Amino acid sequence: MIAPVEKKDAWAYIGGLPLTRATLTDPAPMLHLKSTSSQRWLDQVHENIVEILIDHAHCEKKAAGTAMNFIFYYVEDEDLCREMSEIVNEELEHFHMVLDILRQRGEKFRRLKPSSYGSRLHQLIRKQEPERAVDRLLVAGLIEARSCERFGLLGEKLEDKELAQFFGSLFESEARHHATYVQLAKNYANEETVMQRLEELAIQEAEIIALGDEFPRVHS
Amino acid sequence: MIAPVEKKDAWAYIGGLPLTRATLTDPAPMLHLKSTSSQRWLDQVHENIVEILIDHAHCEKKAAGTAMNFIFYYVEDEDLCREMSEIVNEELEHFHMVLDILRQRGEKFRRLKPSSYGSRLHQLIRKQEPERAVDRLLVAGLIEARSCERFGLLGEKLEDKELAQFFGSLFESEARHHATYVQLAKNYANEETVMQRLEELAIQEAEIIALGDEFPRVHS
Repeated sequence: MIAPVEKKDAWAYIGGLPLTRATLTDPAPMLHLKSTSSQRWLDQVHENIVEILIDHAHCEKKAAGTAMNFIFYYVEDEDLCREMSEIVNEELEHFHMVLDILRQRGEKFRRLKPSSYGSRLHQLIRKQEPERAVDRLLVAGLIEARSCERFGLLGEKLEDKELAQFFGSLFESEARHHATYVQLAKNYANEETVMQRLEELAIQEAEIIALGDEFPRVHS
Repeated sequence: MIAPVEKKDAWAYIGGLPLTRATLTDPAPMLHLKSTSSQRWLDQVHENIVEILIDHAHCEKKAAGTAMNFIFYYVEDEDLCREMSEIVNEELEHFHMVLDILRQRGEKFRRLKPSSYGSRLHQLIRKQEPERAVDRLLVAGLIEARSCERFGLLGEKLEDKELAQFFGSLFESEARHHATYVQLAKNYANEETVMQRLEELAIQEAEIIALGDEFPRVHS
């Protein structure tokens, strides 16, 4: 059993700001999320940790693929291409870290039906540019934020200390990726418009993540 | 004017084997190519170096995308995923190196119609697995080989010493990527079958590259 979410003191520093467990579970304002993850999800993780790890590997791979797609789609935005290249590298590194953990535990990596979270979020993306670019970047940023929030929780709550430490170690990069995506969206609309749209999308993200998923997944 | 291709002595070492200009222009056997690049192409480069550089940036981006696609398509092949992750990283690094060169020269990176080389080669890929995997890997490997051969030539022939040095510096990694792709194909068919198919595809590659292209491109 994983202990329920609790509030505590300083947890990590993101962008020079202290991120406390209190802010994390309120949730962390710099992640722009509108909810904290539920005990239901923590229980699902606890009962299906191998399946969560396999899905996690796929999530890291997909995050790398998303960043690569941005390079192809917005190749003339050099700022974006540089940031995306770094994200591709980091996500692929995480992908291999998860594969290593699975192998060390004698578990076989395999294909897995993804949760409906990503496809539901992608339905929110507007079709016309530049709104499309803003939405794509913000949706990618919200997925990073939710992963960050959940990895932070796992870092605190998992009884398997090795895994807890692993998930905790990913917290910082996911938070940074979230900030990068939000920042890049400001190349495609003014700051006020971006932050207003982020607020709208974050509300919908909270509704989507609350739906959960039949299968245990990182975003179920 | 770029000087015609000449044969000289030791040029580089790939996989412990001395690569001489003689083998390079015969061409280098370890690249498995069936032709050397023509004076026509060298003249095209000489007259359109900026367009070649812009296309080169796109080629590096596409090479990264190809390696990423392999990860998505053959995700259960951990061997392949590791090699492809390294290639993704290296190609993105090269992509940014070319963008830097363009910026230093005051040239704007932009979208560009690609040469028909890649799409012609992709038409040769068989539709059924595992033949499809073998062909996709070998086609990717032949594109790396041709880039390698051409970058080697530019390293020797360009009068702009900064660019010559840059292209020459890419030779080793392109040769290594070629070898990686050929090696990985052997996970999907036995060595004899792979080498026979590589021979067939290399003959067709030489015919395709000989067609050239109206526009100056890395593979025109």
